[in-house]
Amino acid sequence: MSRPKPRTVKGFRDLYADDLARRRDMIEKVRRVYESYGFAEIDTPAVEFVDCLGKFLPESFTPAGGIFAFRNPDVADDDAAGDPDSWVSLRYDLTAPLARLVSEMGEKLPRPFRRWQVGTVWRVEKPGLGRFREFTQVDFDSVGVASVAADAEACAILAEVFEALGFARGDYLVRVNDRKVMQGLLSACGVAGAESADDDDSLAAQVLRTVDKLDRLGIEGVRELLGPGRRDETTVWTEGCKLTAAQIARIEEFLTARGEGDSRTAVCDRLLELVAESEIGREGVEELRAIDAVLTTLGIGDDRVIFDPTVVRGLAYYTGPVFEGQVVREIRDEKGRPRQFGALMSGGRYDGLVERFTGQKAPATGASVGVDRTLEVLKLLEPRQGRPSTAEVLVTVMDKARLPDYFAMARELRGAGVRTELFLGGGRIGKQLKYADRIGVPLALIAGSDEFDKGEVQVKDLRLGAELSGTIEDRDEWRKGQPAQQSVPRAELVERITAMLGHHG
Amino acid sequence: MSRPKPRTVKGFRDLYADDLARRRDMIEKVRRVYESYGFAEIDTPAVEFVDCLGKFLPESFTPAGGIFAFRNPDVADDDAAGDPDSWVSLRYDLTAPLARLVSEMGEKLPRPFRRWQVGTVWRVEKPGLGRFREFTQVDFDSVGVASVAADAEACAILAEVFEALGFARGDYLVRVNDRKVMQGLLSACGVAGAESADDDDSLAAQVLRTVDKLDRLGIEGVRELLGPGRRDETTVWTEGCKLTAAQIARIEEFLTARGEGDSRTAVCDRLLELVAESEIGREGVEELRAIDAVLTTLGIGDDRVIFDPTVVRGLAYYTGPVFEGQVVREIRDEKGRPRQFGALMSGGRYDGLVERFTGQKAPATGASVGVDRTLEVLKLLEPRQGRPSTAEVLVTVMDKARLPDYFAMARELRGAGVRTELFLGGGRIGKQLKYADRIGVPLALIAGSDEFDKGEVQVKDLRLGAELSGTIEDRDEWRKGQPAQQSVPRAELVERITAMLGHHG
Repeated sequence: MSRPKPRTVKGFRDLYADDLARRRDMIEKVRRVYESYGFAEIDTPAVEFVDCLGKFLPESFTPAGGIFAFRNPDVADDDAAGDPDSWVSLRYDLTAPLARLVSEMGEKLPRPFRRWQVGTVWRVEKPGLGRFREFTQVDFDSVGVASVAADAEACAILAEVFEALGFARGDYLVRVNDRKVMQGLLSACGVAGAESADDDDSLAAQVLRTVDKLDRLGIEGVRELLGPGRRDETTVWTEGCKLTAAQIARIEEFLTARGEGDSRTAVCDRLLELVAESEIGREGVEELRAIDAVLTTLGIGDDRVIFDPTVVRGLAYYTGPVFEGQVVREIRDEKGRPRQFGALMSGGRYDGLVERFTGQKAPATGASVGVDRTLEVLKLLEPRQGRPSTAEVLVTVMDKARLPDYFAMARELRGAGVRTELFLGGGRIGKQLKYADRIGVPLALIAGSDEFDKGEVQVKDLRLGAELSGTIEDRDEWRKGQPAQQSVPRAELVERITAMLGHHG
Repeated sequence: MSRPKPRTVKGFRDLYADDLARRRDMIEKVRRVYESYGFAEIDTPAVEFVDCLGKFLPESFTPAGGIFAFRNPDVADDDAAGDPDSWVSLRYDLTAPLARLVSEMGEKLPRPFRRWQVGTVWRVEKPGLGRFREFTQVDFDSVGVASVAADAEACAILAEVFEALGFARGDYLVRVNDRKVMQGLLSACGVAGAESADDDDSLAAQVLRTVDKLDRLGIEGVRELLGPGRRDETTVWTEGCKLTAAQIARIEEFLTARGEGDSRTAVCDRLLELVAESEIGREGVEELRAIDAVLTTLGIGDDRVIFDPTVVRGLAYYTGPVFEGQVVREIRDEKGRPRQFGALMSGGRYDGLVERFTGQKAPATGASVGVDRTLEVLKLLEPRQGRPSTAEVLVTVMDKARLPDYFAMARELRGAGVRTELFLGGGRIGKQLKYADRIGVPLALIAGSDEFDKGEVQVKDLRLGAELSGTIEDRDEWRKGQPAQQSVPRAELVERITAMLGHHG
């Protein structure tokens, strides 16, 4: 038998303590914000029936498109055809499972049902820079809430999440739009399918997906795609929406309706002018005005939440307000090059999501925070967060016969709250100190027969060593003074170590 | 198109805030113990290549047996045959991915490599009472550590985890055995295949799997299966190992070698008698003695960690000490019936795990804590843990025109650290208070035009209401006094509410 090659599946990755400490910290902060608003945690399975998940991934309209689907082991091959239980899939978001849960539990859940959830989701995407097939989301949603006050609350929560994560006022923006305003515009322009939001194949839906590419293609590219079509750099031709010049001009006017620094009220006034002839359009503007009123009550100004008609969101299921949170401060990568990031969080109202199960609309709104991308931004803005919570002290082993004594030291230190590793691998003291450097432990303890006889322990400060060797050119010079190593009485070990680590008495 | 039925896949389940708060709390406590020993967190993908996972599930020796495997979407159907990348699978434990990671990273990882990991794992098991196909494990492992001191440390960690989770001394036991002792016994008995631990098809391996059923079948059942075979209650015949009466008698003597209350030293002495003629058997007893010495140094007595020759552990890959942690206190279910639980945590030494990748042995030892089963036990022992951290105050809405005022109250309370939900659903005050009861919020605020005019807010204490209505027979009687409702000045709202909730100033 040949040996397998150890490797990970494309788009999947291993993570280490440093990243995981940040992730844990981030999720904890988001959790506190969500729970301060009374959202209760739930967890749902990673695996769901394919027909329960539906087909809500943007631009993927086949069961296999975009999801990790596989055969249900409970259904025999012979019985698979026509059995809806035959196919299961890894979830691709946390909203589809929520719709399944709400439909399944019905009256057994309180209404409103306000839940938050953190979980891994999986998508078969083309892997690329910072794009993975396995990632983590933290969502909150209110089901059974028709009032746009809940949408306003959701926007407020996103703004609060940014600040809880350490983003300063002015570094982020929550951008809000309303699907109904856009629908009103398309309806006023005479674009087919503008009246019903949920037909993915309509011209209106195609226009929405085109507008959603504004970030990537710029206004020029969008203009071409609204018209006859567009040839990209690789000379691939994409068929356009074939709108008239007048229609395209109106859409462009709409997309540029917000002037730099315009207040929410000013944007509402301008949008109303553009969609005045459409009832649904006017309704959308009214919703935005109501959201503005709540935000103002909550003390959330135009520096944190803005109205922006270019926000579309790719998902087909949104029916009213949509919003996304973005970092607007410049971000540079490790090499100083500017990096663009899309939305770190997004959400909106989706009153039709349980309809496919129950046949009835249930008002719902909520949002999702993308954990991985947000962490990537935080890492670039604040590269060094301090050591992850691993060992603070390494007890080295010079004399295996004295193992009980080393174990005793480690035990005493742990008892005092010091994270302590006893070196249990093989090798001499030099190798052990290299290991200490390698894992980044701040202090190493050394004790051989000399020290045991004298009732002492050598404490090596590896932080100081590293610092000094980094600043002083001649490594040997500072070694003479050995400021990084000192002898402490065995009886005072715990006391001295906790002091050196800056633990609070 | 017909509507899908909202449902979960067999063996999968939804979890709610109460259970999740316990789970979060439990994982946090286990994390603190692991990190106090210097283990650093890692995370690996949920999906791995099937050939990287290997076939380590007990009694499942085909790639499909016991795992959720599916086709890799990156490999076209036509290319699938013979391509090792064709099949991927959800991980079934955290140890196989660790072996993949260690083999893949090689020198890039420090040695010893001490990592801990929390994660979901998936197995295609027959679902049953308390048995799920998706569950959570928290593991720690030391790779590159040959000394049995590391096995002793692992046992100490498991004992410490029990206590960190609130189990009292005497309520739990960590039971330890050594595969080598058992191997020595089988070798001394002349059972074929006893010398090499890793042949799953050998008679010795079959005997080990039979002995592993002792808990379930009792000594009678095991005796039958070591002999010709056994007919169970449903009259199904299971073929036995066909050992001789003398061999069976020796194995029985071995399994009952530990007398009630025997010290670790006493068990070692007795085991040495039984395997004295076998070199590997003597080596196993020496390992147990070394483990005993470390445990004694760490102050861990026979009331916490015992040596027990009946511990086998089903997994084929163990090569030395094996251990498991069990609750020995009687556990009763909600209806007062005694419930049996197997091991809540388990582990052992597996020096051969990376060999299938690298061709070389790498000493390794570690253990896994089963989160779900442990939580089930904790819930039965301590049914009510207090409310999960959801809303503490519900602000009801009597007058929609005053929404900004309600938002302001909620905002002030959140600012003071009070988890506050503003009721954003529809319906009158009666429905809102029913909702408050339903979600178990302790306090509800009520304010209509009267209260606004007077500058007051009504505070309803729902805990008190529930308590009183539970103890006083005539609900109406206590209602007269209305001890559960009081008026507080709007200006003092935050101060009074935090006092009522017992928040620290």
